Amino acid sequence: MSEIHYPAGIRPPKNNGDTLLKKQTKKPKSIASQKKIAPGNRGMAFEAAINESNAYYQEKGLCLVTKRPTPIKVVRVDYTKGPKITDAFYETQSTTDYNGVYEGHYIDFEAKETQSATSFPLANIPLQQIEHLEGVLAQGGIAFFLIRFAKKGEVFLLPASFLCSFYREKPRASIPYATFLEKGYPVKEGYHPRVDYLPVLIEAFAL
Amino acid sequence: MSEIHYPAGIRPPKNNGDTLLKKQTKKPKSIASQKKIAPGNRGMAFEAAINESNAYYQEKGLCLVTKRPTPIKVVRVDYTKGPKITDAFYETQSTTDYNGVYEGHYIDFEAKETQSATSFPLANIPLQQIEHLEGVLAQGGIAFFLIRFAKKGEVFLLPASFLCSFYREKPRASIPYATFLEKGYPVKEGYHPRVDYLPVLIEAFAL
Repeated sequence: MSEIHYPAGIRPPKNNGDTLLKKQTKKPKSIASQKKIAPGNRGMAFEAAINESNAYYQEKGLCLVTKRPTPIKVVRVDYTKGPKITDAFYETQSTTDYNGVYEGHYIDFEAKETQSATSFPLANIPLQQIEHLEGVLAQGGIAFFLIRFAKKGEVFLLPASFLCSFYREKPRASIPYATFLEKGYPVKEGYHPRVDYLPVLIEAFAL
Repeated sequence: MSEIHYPAGIRPPKNNGDTLLKKQTKKPKSIASQKKIAPGNRGMAFEAAINESNAYYQEKGLCLVTKRPTPIKVVRVDYTKGPKITDAFYETQSTTDYNGVYEGHYIDFEAKETQSATSFPLANIPLQQIEHLEGVLAQGGIAFFLIRFAKKGEVFLLPASFLCSFYREKPRASIPYATFLEKGYPVKEGYHPRVDYLPVLIEAFAL
């Protein structure tokens, strides 16, 4: 979701020490608790909202999309306790965060949130995600981005075909908000599902 | 791959101490080095062979299949060094290890190896993988298992529709080898790709 792939629930350090993480829960946070999330953590709230939406779609049998686990490079394991991992570090996701199936079609997407009100900086996207999505497109898969403008509270589905071309040609270092109005598809945010992207996806790709 | 999901390169403990893992390489192992792998580690060799085959297919533009990272539950992170994970443990994969796209079709599979020469024990498969694959089938995805009989040196593609029914009805606690000859599709093992499952998949599902 963010440039550094912390898994959901892991926050940037507040002190420079060893941080014991709170127990993670898969339940979506209440709207009240969302409002307390500091701006820097909103990317994680967006990720949680997409995970909740995927769970909703799965429960209703509408589509099946899973989040790839954050890849972790394990350096040391203590087998006397479990096994327990005692030394490891986060690796960059070499693909996208989400993929799945809708009526037989392969679906692949990445979700990003930006704090900019005017444009989406391409620096948010690692080259390997572009390469992965180009591979998906070459295999006839459905590939897109879900991009949230946090300050506007607006989410767009942007086809990967457009974003990958823009990335390669780089007419600008960021995609203007106005381009989203032209090339993207607005996605409604609500209560349940919180990011209702499936009807938009069906329309955008004429499925 | 095995009942406990150690990621590739992590071996069960030989001593009961803290084990520093060797640097992992994504290069496929040479045939000579494969022969040195102890029987208990053959599951990992099979996983490596499938990863190599997927890399081969991707390079040739034939299909795009990725391995989901092993999910790891992070308990403690030391932000003074990186961030560096200092306490974590392996979680069970709630889906399958592999999914991807072939000519727009969603593909999802699990790879397993058995040391039994006579049957494949269902105890090798967690219930959540069955549930996941049933979800994939309900969405019109292509779902199967690649199962290797280590002692025979034979690999079969077995459609998930058959295996899930067998699992639910449980006429036996394991699927006899003879049933693989009847319901499965033999997959050739070779040098490059090492597990050439794509043509078998195309034939089995009439793609």
